[in-house]
Amino acid sequence: MEEVPDHSRKEQDSLGSMVIPKSAYYGIHTVRAMDNFPVSGRPVNPHLIHSMVTVKKAAALAHMKMNTYQLEIALVIVQACDDILEGQYKEQFTVDALQGGAGTSTNMNVNEVIANRAIELLGGKRGDYSRIHPLDHVNCCQSTNDVYPTALRMAAIGQVRKLSQAFASLQEALQEKEHEFADVLKLGRTELMDALPMMAGQGFGAYAKAVARDRWRLYKVEERLREINIGGTAIGTGINAPVKYTFYITDILQDLTGYGLARSEYPMDPTQNMDVFVEVSGLLKAASVNLLKISNDLRLLASGPTGGFGELELPAVQAGSSIMPGKVNPVMAEMIGLVAMRVIANDSAVTMAAASGQLELNAFMPLIADALLESLEILTRGVRLFEERCIRGISIHEDRCIEMVENSTVLATALVGHIGYEKSAEIAKQARREGKTVRCVLLESKILTDAEVDRILSLYQVTKPGIPGK
Amino acid sequence: MEEVPDHSRKEQDSLGSMVIPKSAYYGIHTVRAMDNFPVSGRPVNPHLIHSMVTVKKAAALAHMKMNTYQLEIALVIVQACDDILEGQYKEQFTVDALQGGAGTSTNMNVNEVIANRAIELLGGKRGDYSRIHPLDHVNCCQSTNDVYPTALRMAAIGQVRKLSQAFASLQEALQEKEHEFADVLKLGRTELMDALPMMAGQGFGAYAKAVARDRWRLYKVEERLREINIGGTAIGTGINAPVKYTFYITDILQDLTGYGLARSEYPMDPTQNMDVFVEVSGLLKAASVNLLKISNDLRLLASGPTGGFGELELPAVQAGSSIMPGKVNPVMAEMIGLVAMRVIANDSAVTMAAASGQLELNAFMPLIADALLESLEILTRGVRLFEERCIRGISIHEDRCIEMVENSTVLATALVGHIGYEKSAEIAKQARREGKTVRCVLLESKILTDAEVDRILSLYQVTKPGIPGK
Amino acid sequence: MEEVPDHSRKEQDSLGSMVIPKSAYYGIHTVRAMDNFPVSGRPVNPHLIHSMVTVKKAAALAHMKMNTYQLEIALVIVQACDDILEGQYKEQFTVDALQGGAGTSTNMNVNEVIANRAIELLGGKRGDYSRIHPLDHVNCCQSTNDVYPTALRMAAIGQVRKLSQAFASLQEALQEKEHEFADVLKLGRTELMDALPMMAGQGFGAYAKAVARDRWRLYKVEERLREINIGGTAIGTGINAPVKYTFYITDILQDLTGYGLARSEYPMDPTQNMDVFVEVSGLLKAASVNLLKISNDLRLLASGPTGGFGELELPAVQAGSSIMPGKVNPVMAEMIGLVAMRVIANDSAVTMAAASGQLELNAFMPLIADALLESLEILTRGVRLFEERCIRGISIHEDRCIEMVENSTVLATALVGHIGYEKSAEIAKQARREGKTVRCVLLESKILTDAEVDRILSLYQVTKPGIPGK
Amino acid sequence: MEEVPDHSRKEQDSLGSMVIPKSAYYGIHTVRAMDNFPVSGRPVNPHLIHSMVTVKKAAALAHMKMNTYQLEIALVIVQACDDILEGQYKEQFTVDALQGGAGTSTNMNVNEVIANRAIELLGGKRGDYSRIHPLDHVNCCQSTNDVYPTALRMAAIGQVRKLSQAFASLQEALQEKEHEFADVLKLGRTELMDALPMMAGQGFGAYAKAVARDRWRLYKVEERLREINIGGTAIGTGINAPVKYTFYITDILQDLTGYGLARSEYPMDPTQNMDVFVEVSGLLKAASVNLLKISNDLRLLASGPTGGFGELELPAVQAGSSIMPGKVNPVMAEMIGLVAMRVIANDSAVTMAAASGQLELNAFMPLIADALLESLEILTRGVRLFEERCIRGISIHEDRCIEMVENSTVLATALVGHIGYEKSAEIAKQARREGKTVRCVLLESKILTDAEVDRILSLYQVTKPGIPGK
Repeated sequence: MEEVPDHSRKEQDSLGSMVIPKSAYYGIHTVRAMDNFPVSGRPVNPHLIHSMVTVKKAAALAHMKMNTYQLEIALVIVQACDDILEGQYKEQFTVDALQGGAGTSTNMNVNEVIANRAIELLGGKRGDYSRIHPLDHVNCCQSTNDVYPTALRMAAIGQVRKLSQAFASLQEALQEKEHEFADVLKLGRTELMDALPMMAGQGFGAYAKAVARDRWRLYKVEERLREINIGGTAIGTGINAPVKYTFYITDILQDLTGYGLARSEYPMDPTQNMDVFVEVSGLLKAASVNLLKISNDLRLLASGPTGGFGELELPAVQAGSSIMPGKVNPVMAEMIGLVAMRVIANDSAVTMAAASGQLELNAFMPLIADALLESLEILTRGVRLFEERCIRGISIHEDRCIEMVENSTVLATALVGHIGYEKSAEIAKQARREGKTVRCVLLESKILTDAEVDRILSLYQVTKPGIPGK
Repeated sequence: MEEVPDHSRKEQDSLGSMVIPKSAYYGIHTVRAMDNFPVSGRPVNPHLIHSMVTVKKAAALAHMKMNTYQLEIALVIVQACDDILEGQYKEQFTVDALQGGAGTSTNMNVNEVIANRAIELLGGKRGDYSRIHPLDHVNCCQSTNDVYPTALRMAAIGQVRKLSQAFASLQEALQEKEHEFADVLKLGRTELMDALPMMAGQGFGAYAKAVARDRWRLYKVEERLREINIGGTAIGTGINAPVKYTFYITDILQDLTGYGLARSEYPMDPTQNMDVFVEVSGLLKAASVNLLKISNDLRLLASGPTGGFGELELPAVQAGSSIMPGKVNPVMAEMIGLVAMRVIANDSAVTMAAASGQLELNAFMPLIADALLESLEILTRGVRLFEERCIRGISIHEDRCIEMVENSTVLATALVGHIGYEKSAEIAKQARREGKTVRCVLLESKILTDAEVDRILSLYQVTKPGIPGK
Repeated sequence: MEEVPDHSRKEQDSLGSMVIPKSAYYGIHTVRAMDNFPVSGRPVNPHLIHSMVTVKKAAALAHMKMNTYQLEIALVIVQACDDILEGQYKEQFTVDALQGGAGTSTNMNVNEVIANRAIELLGGKRGDYSRIHPLDHVNCCQSTNDVYPTALRMAAIGQVRKLSQAFASLQEALQEKEHEFADVLKLGRTELMDALPMMAGQGFGAYAKAVARDRWRLYKVEERLREINIGGTAIGTGINAPVKYTFYITDILQDLTGYGLARSEYPMDPTQNMDVFVEVSGLLKAASVNLLKISNDLRLLASGPTGGFGELELPAVQAGSSIMPGKVNPVMAEMIGLVAMRVIANDSAVTMAAASGQLELNAFMPLIADALLESLEILTRGVRLFEERCIRGISIHEDRCIEMVENSTVLATALVGHIGYEKSAEIAKQARREGKTVRCVLLESKILTDAEVDRILSLYQVTKPGIPGK
Repeated sequence: MEEVPDHSRKEQDSLGSMVIPKSAYYGIHTVRAMDNFPVSGRPVNPHLIHSMVTVKKAAALAHMKMNTYQLEIALVIVQACDDILEGQYKEQFTVDALQGGAGTSTNMNVNEVIANRAIELLGGKRGDYSRIHPLDHVNCCQSTNDVYPTALRMAAIGQVRKLSQAFASLQEALQEKEHEFADVLKLGRTELMDALPMMAGQGFGAYAKAVARDRWRLYKVEERLREINIGGTAIGTGINAPVKYTFYITDILQDLTGYGLARSEYPMDPTQNMDVFVEVSGLLKAASVNLLKISNDLRLLASGPTGGFGELELPAVQAGSSIMPGKVNPVMAEMIGLVAMRVIANDSAVTMAAASGQLELNAFMPLIADALLESLEILTRGVRLFEERCIRGISIHEDRCIEMVENSTVLATALVGHIGYEKSAEIAKQARREGKTVRCVLLESKILTDAEVDRILSLYQVTKPGIPGK
């Protein structure tokens, strides 16, 4: 007979037996997965683990109502779940984020840790599954195929809500700047070329509008995330899960999360179709596009200060260079840009993985979970930091802003409603050629009276709807 | 003085003069763009042109109410627009789809063709802009920067609605199969491995659910497409557009399209922010993921017929091979897969282009328009063809379906609720090893009575929720 | 018996018979494909058709050497191919670019047009395949599975070479600017912030280096495109193709193309593996990244002119705005940026399609062909236009360039080697705070002698390697 | 005066002073970055840190030769670097992977840890930079802008080499199976439909060829990674780096790494152009496409076992289901597929980041580094695991393979060279309709003599080039 070292125990599964560290709460299924998938070095996202443990707790509570197994067992399973939910045993979730097997290894890892903690609470020894079994008890009436998507949806809702709050703060910060710079006249540019005068605040207002849409989308998409397939078990037919159990566990999960979760009426659908995660990821991509636009604009408007646009000044949060003394870089704007790109790349992973589902299941859910939850997390943190360490502290160089308007020929547009497009174009060209202002060329040309010129070229008028001077 | 050949005319702009074919309705701005952008060989999407002409017609009608210019001019501009909207002069829209300049060349192309047709209606000669001017009249109170996004949103709404109808038909076709195959027992597979029995109709039901979500999303996103920035002119401040005009033109566009368009309260936002197109494209991507899943499944289930799954038979729509006689391939399923991939790739173009907006405008709108409208069109056509030439004609090999269930060991799962996971696994293994059915091994084992076995392993029972036999 | 209208003929295949326009050179297989795939409205890329016809010609010449069938038949097939290669019958290639069936429909279209043209040359009637048969003669010893990848590789080589020449011209144009602006001092910027002085020519030199790498990569990748699987027939085993035929046709294709094509030693590999197209597309993506970098930089450096960097002036190639008179936009730089984004998106299509190959074939080759050949074409045309209409005509505002260097505090870096990083940083900060130049603050500080200051802060010195003043 | 707690020290930079844990080897710049970028929770890739420390060591050795500063300082810097290179102080590299600032924070983190360790070796107190300064000594003659790209190239070469070795093993394992299954006849399929007979080994041979190309590409791309811009300092002009130093440090880096590194002749180019990383990432994408193809094929061929292709058996490495007893899933094939998708997504990040470079620098290098190095690492580990735990243990069900060939009608293709395409198609259809073999229908038809039929339909013959029976 094989000897087991002192600090170890032996466990068995259908492939044979393995030696496991005695201290481990995980068991043989987890150890096999650790051996099979040492790929990324990153563990499974903790929010997913948290949601899976919540599902396990809800299952035990449902079984308690149904007297599926002894009350005592249900009670210690619930207690074990609570221990984990409070933050203990984190280091016991050891399976790699990039794992094959559609999440089975993560589910087994969770089942084993809960079982062993529960066994311990009963006074038993870890690995002695005769009283509490990872599958027959902790996983009772469940399959990875219903637990995993259910938990992923719960985790996504939680993170979507946090991100939504971060966007709310960002929107508010942008609106604050909209008001702060409401009276600062500056050049608007299209295709990077001097175009028309505007108020500096208006630019921030346009950013705030885009961010407001991002919030709205996140708010609306939650509806589709709320539909869960728990009780569908393996392929969604619900085999091995009594109908009563499915109703109970759904209600309990609603209570535990406060999320308004709803039992899918067609559990085969959420078991195999992952389009809702593609939808959420697509919205994060749309938000990232807005963040890239905003951060690129800010970097541009703060560029220089001498050899660039030099309109804005972003807060200095660290020294910018190891060789150029005194240089300060727009690092927070760069950070959010980089986060946005990462999110767009993650969307590519979510899309491919979701498109790779086959028949009754999607084997690549672990990649969907990894990429989507990463996107949600880095966006939430990134948006917060961007708001606090960049947007809130932006100041403006008013003199430079107005000087550029005055030196440019953009006011020629105000003339179109009075003297037509072609004459206006000639005046603009002449002004540029002779290095004069549009006003000056116009006055010299005597096309309009001095009073008309004054009325038409009123700087503040040209930033508002209507034909200036009419 | 430069001579102009007989079949030509001469036009002038701020860069100089050019010789233009006398027959052309387009003018010098279009010709310059044709010279600058012979890139893809594809013209601008006709739906975008159609929407831009609709905007021009609405503008002329608005000016008619405001008496901005002579009634006669407005009337012939409207008439010229109607001629084009009815399908004439298509070949006059000659600017390449892949153009620089944020759509200005397309706007100028439209302005010039309308102006010259209107001039003609007045009895004038093409190119004589003294009576009707492409900019001062046709483009009056407009900028490419408000016309282009407005027209793109209108074109997108029209195409989204068509796609939505195509998805409705596809959903209906899938539901038809759901009912047709409702009583055909077959193997469900997870990770491509034999998993559990199910009804063939259930699979189609799951597809129908996914497609239903695609419809719903397209329905809901229209709301955000309806917000238009017409009247915002160049950078969204509304310079050169009287407030009254903006209200008029919005109302008229509503009437002309029947779309429920709404004036943006912050026109700088839709002028520079393109996230709504990223959102729509992201939803098309989610739909594509569903189409890939469905079409890949169908190709798999129809594979063989001998050396594959061989459950389904897709309609034969053409001979499959130039060398292998009698071979028939799943070409319609491949087609929709290929369309889905193209749409996913287009989403990448939309995303990059949208993220590349700078300050008050996005210079890359022509790429957004080209990619998004292509996606909408090929999806609409592809989905229709897939539905009509593939889904509707699918038949099933019932014998093969049931034979595979019976020869497999998947019924072991039904035992878990009775004899536990580990014993069930042993029976499955033994059945596989000895080439017997699960039922047979179970009966031989005497673990359960014959009556119990019959009750538990009822094939139709195991495709429904609950613990079989309980 | 079914009547056939006068202007029509009837053809038959394994699915039944169809009525075909008498004038059509294509036949029943093409018509079925036209009915099945009205998806994109775009025909198959003509370069692919050209290469497929070349393969057919080579096959006929090989059979001529082998006396597979009558000499007369081979001769008219060759003649028919030559007619098409010279540009006739273009409108007969009617199958949609987005087609299912792994290219079989395109192969059949080509077979049918050649056969009918050959029948006509023999004095026969189109559709009478008794003398010359699309499959038994034109397709003899071939399968779509070897013809299509072979033709695609040939088409790709031809386009890669054209693109390579376009890059050579672009490189040369950039180097011309490198020399032209070799002595213009300007600000270098990192992270968009003023960094160090440099020569304007150096920037263009860096662009030229990147483009030179693009050329080199395209040159090297041809090697892998040259391996062709013709003779492998259906799955690459070579069934139905005598070994002699394979040697002959490869030699003949070499002669016809001049490309150094080589018979694959393992024809199953190029039949099913598409990684070489992913590789080529990946290199086009790398080139696109360089084009985006260059064009974005140029747009930035030419921005303003008043409210931006204003260093460069890009040639004016068209009027820039329909509302802002006199505005000129960087449309050629935008065009190449947009082309680059399209190429990056196409890469996504190529990647997905290539990854979707299954077993002995890749069913999605038509998408690979469509996307890859489009990328090659639009890059070639775009790069040419960008070079000719943008790069060649760039001019520089020397005064503005030098003024920005002088007004900035970047010279502080030159001090690091003399007074250390921290003191240098203080001087830079003081200069910025007091609105003075670094030289001025340094002289006032008396840290260094006036002579030292002069030696260290020599403007031209600081753009060269080494510690300034040492 | 501000008090500093006992376990802390105080440091100062241009933005003010901060309190730092006394035990920390990092300093104020690192702490600011930790505060600014708590984004992903992941540290910078350790291979990049390793390469950066190697650069710092090489710089100190170069300065030793040049007597830039005291020998003793150089010696302890080298010693500090060696300590880190041996694996100490890993936890001191605390800046987040997703950081703004173009890598400056990582460079400063490295400078500070080395400086403080060196100070300690000299008997000084951490934070007392009077003797050894992170910038004036450790960073002497360097800028993040040359250190970072140089180190990234070095790190990439190291990882590319490891991946190349992993591919070599994979190729060898595939070839082993090619030989092992060389005589097993099976069905080849195109578009998933029964096509032609082949040998099972041939399929593995085709996979091996694709993997061989991946190796070759990685081998060839190293050439471009070897060009380093060290000595180019801030924008590549080489300011503050004596020419001699640049030669010395390049030589020393060659010695330390053994990589054949070469000084860039145009250091502005590698400072701002990132296309080489896009190229490498593109090759990883091509390799991923091959891995997806191979792993998808294997999952397909091993599907079932009853309700699928059932040809192959992949090694069982863990139990497959928490609910379906006895189920074993292709988890290693899924794992490599998931890794491949992650790499393709990372390529998207690399591409966007590389395209976002502006003027003299690319601010988004940290994302390029993070994504590219992750791709290299997970591919290397994934490929190894896939080879060892999947490919090596594949077995084949010979009976099933041959049975499917015999039951199919694919042999009809062998008849095309004898009785033409159309007759062959009829026989195939008849066989399918009547449930007979092709041989049987053919014999009954008397079209060919029995001897001819035997000669033509020899199973092994039809897997080889040539017309069977001729």
